[in-house]
This record gives sequence, structure tokens and C-alpha cells, in this order.
Amino acid sequence: MDKYLPILSIETSASLCSVALLLSADDYVELNFEKKHIHAEKIFTAIEQLFQISNTSIKDISSIAISMGPGSFTGLRIGMSVAKGLAFGRDIPIIPVPTFEAFAYQICHFIQDKTEFYIINDANIDEYYIGKFSKTRESYKIKIQPKLIKKDSLNKFKKINSLAFGNFNKEVKSIANPNAIYIAKWAYIFGKKLLTLQYDFLEPLYIKQFIPRAKK
Amino acid sequence: MDKYLPILSIETSASLCSVALLLSADDYVELNFEKKHIHAEKIFTAIEQLFQISNTSIKDISSIAISMGPGSFTGLRIGMSVAKGLAFGRDIPIIPVPTFEAFAYQICHFIQDKTEFYIINDANIDEYYIGKFSKTRESYKIKIQPKLIKKDSLNKFKKINSLAFGNFNKEVKSIANPNAIYIAKWAYIFGKKLLTLQYDFLEPLYIKQFIPRAKK
Repeated sequence: MDKYLPILSIETSASLCSVALLLSADDYVELNFEKKHIHAEKIFTAIEQLFQISNTSIKDISSIAISMGPGSFTGLRIGMSVAKGLAFGRDIPIIPVPTFEAFAYQICHFIQDKTEFYIINDANIDEYYIGKFSKTRESYKIKIQPKLIKKDSLNKFKKINSLAFGNFNKEVKSIANPNAIYIAKWAYIFGKKLLTLQYDFLEPLYIKQFIPRAKK
Repeated sequence: MDKYLPILSIETSASLCSVALLLSADDYVELNFEKKHIHAEKIFTAIEQLFQISNTSIKDISSIAISMGPGSFTGLRIGMSVAKGLAFGRDIPIIPVPTFEAFAYQICHFIQDKTEFYIINDANIDEYYIGKFSKTRESYKIKIQPKLIKKDSLNKFKKINSLAFGNFNKEVKSIANPNAIYIAKWAYIFGKKLLTLQYDFLEPLYIKQFIPRAKK
């Protein structure tokens, strides 16, 4: 995957707006912005700053890794639009990255081999996105593919006291999405098969159906 | 601590050069740069970019949180110099943040209540920095204050198969220092007692003695 470096990566699936530039296997620069409803306003400035600080420009990037979801509809739409726009303008490929897998990969930097864990994020009032993973020596295994469940059925899926990450438990301070650098690293390590120049019809992994709601 | 917001924070104790601006209890912007020997060259550019993207300036910051170590001598020196320079120029206080505690606080966002864990980082060829913590509902407890041990005595301190973070195990990809945003958040939540305007003689927490070595 070295010929696809530097990889520009975009993560906007939750409240954290994060962009990164993976310059080589080990070198990177990353900018994280946590503020509500800021993604659309700040994302281009943030990307421009990555270029400035690394003495690179949009002309130097070779691919774009985009966090595909599941997550916030609006956030995913913004990220995808920016990724497509930049990739189209430069005629470079997009690497669509499954958000929960990149997050699992990030979490694996913090836990021990063979540990099993869940990622559980709020989907809406009644539902969660849930996935189950285990850490291997070099990476992770998927035990349950990310899917949508009813909140009242959580105990069917998650054993009591099992290790879980994500923003499902409002009593615990936690995080709901990976940092963009792990979107880029996932793309670099696992993304070769997903890499595409045919991204016109690429859609975020919403999992659940998008039903726009009018303000009351 | 609200009157000390925004807090500018600096983390240069290991290979990651990280700066952040905590704007309110929940809002922040953070820039991370992972590249060897880049700290001194890039840190002011990085701080300038935090101001740009958050529409703030050096005049808006009310305090500076600095990661005190233990960690890289050179990294800590650079961070401390920048913090003192900016604080002196603006006549604002510095909050000296114990690096391992901020890292423990960061790790606690990823693990379950009551979990015990170690942070173990390489100090040099023969020694580790080691600390032991446990997660509480809201924060963490210190079980063993960070200290320096001989590498061959690790098994005296760390139970086999116990949870450990840091860069001590070369076979496992891991991280050795917290992100700057956790330096800032630690300062915001726990730093009031440490806040000082008398920072002339503030020194990094080296723990071990600094012995300069001539190149052979």
C-alpha cells in the first residue's frame, strides 16, 4: 500500500471531527475538533492545516480514507462529500473504511491479546449500533458484525460486565468514534481490497434506514 | 477552573508531539504530530494552527498545562521551554501535569470500573518507568507512584498477564504518552492545586538523573 501514501483520512461519524495525514507507516499528523455542529464549517480548514504543518499540499496525497459508518447521518454525509470532492478533483482512489473496525483496531492498542470487547453506540432513542470483536496479536477478529438492535434487547447480545466501548452508557465518559489516524492506518494495513476509483455511488454504511424528520 | 479556560496544553514527553486547546468543559481542538525529532521544529506552528482553527489567539488563553514527565529528556525540555515562554509573555499561570496520571485518566476512558492497570515505558536500555493505577467511577486511583525500576526486576512489580500500557513491550504496538487533550482535561479537573505563577524554577519530572552522553 506504500504507493497510496500519503493517505488523507476523514472521520466525522460522531461528535469528533477528525482528519489525518498518514505520511509513512509511522509518521503522521492529525487534527481533532470536538464541538457540536462544527464538521461542515471546519473540515476544509483542518485539512489545509494538515498540509501546512507537514509541508505538503493536496497534490501530494495519493488516496483518501473515509470513515463509512455506522454513525451520525449528517456527519457521514459531510465526510463522504468532502472525500468524493477531493478524490474527484485529484483523480485518486478512495478507501472506504468500516468505522467500527477502525475503532476496534484503535482499541486494540489499549488492551491485551485475546480480550473480547463490544463497541456499542447510540443510534437513536430506541436503538444501538453494536459490534463484537476480539484482539489478536497483530490485529482483531470480528465476532459479531456491526448491526442495529433495540435498546431493550441489549442483554441478549452483551454479557453482563463484559468489556464495552462507545457512548451507549451515559454514566461513563467514553468516546464514540475512532481518531482519523486509525482510519488512515486501517486503510493502509487492511484497505487494499476496498480501494476504488469508482466512488460515484459510494454510500455511507447507515445500517438503518434514513428517515428525515421535520422539526416540530 | 472555568476562569482558567481556554487551557493550552503541551505534551512532548515521548515520540508524539501533541498540543491542544480546551475551550470549554467539552469543546476542544487538538493537533498530533508523530515524527522523530520534530517537536522543536513544529510545536509553534502547531499551536498557531490551534488558534487559527478555533478563531482564537494567544491573547485568549488563560492558562497553560504542561506534561511534566517522566519521559524523554529532550522532549520534556522543549515542552517546558515553550510553556514557560508563552506563560511569561502573557503573564498567565502554568499547570504542571503529571504525565502518567493524565495517561491513566485517558486510559480510563477505555476500560471498566475497578480495573487495575500498569503504565510502563522504556526509560533507557536497562530501566523502565512504571506506575500502577485503578479505574474508579469518575476517575482513577494511584496504586504505585511512577518510579524507575531495573528491567530485570519487572516481574517483581507486575503480575504476569496483568493489564499494562506503554511502550515497554516491543512486540505489541502501543502508545507511550497521553494526547494533549488529556493533559488539558486533567489540568481542568484536577489541576487547581498545582496551578502556579511561580514557574521560574519548575523542572520536568525526570525521576532519574539526567546524564548527558557524548556521541562516540
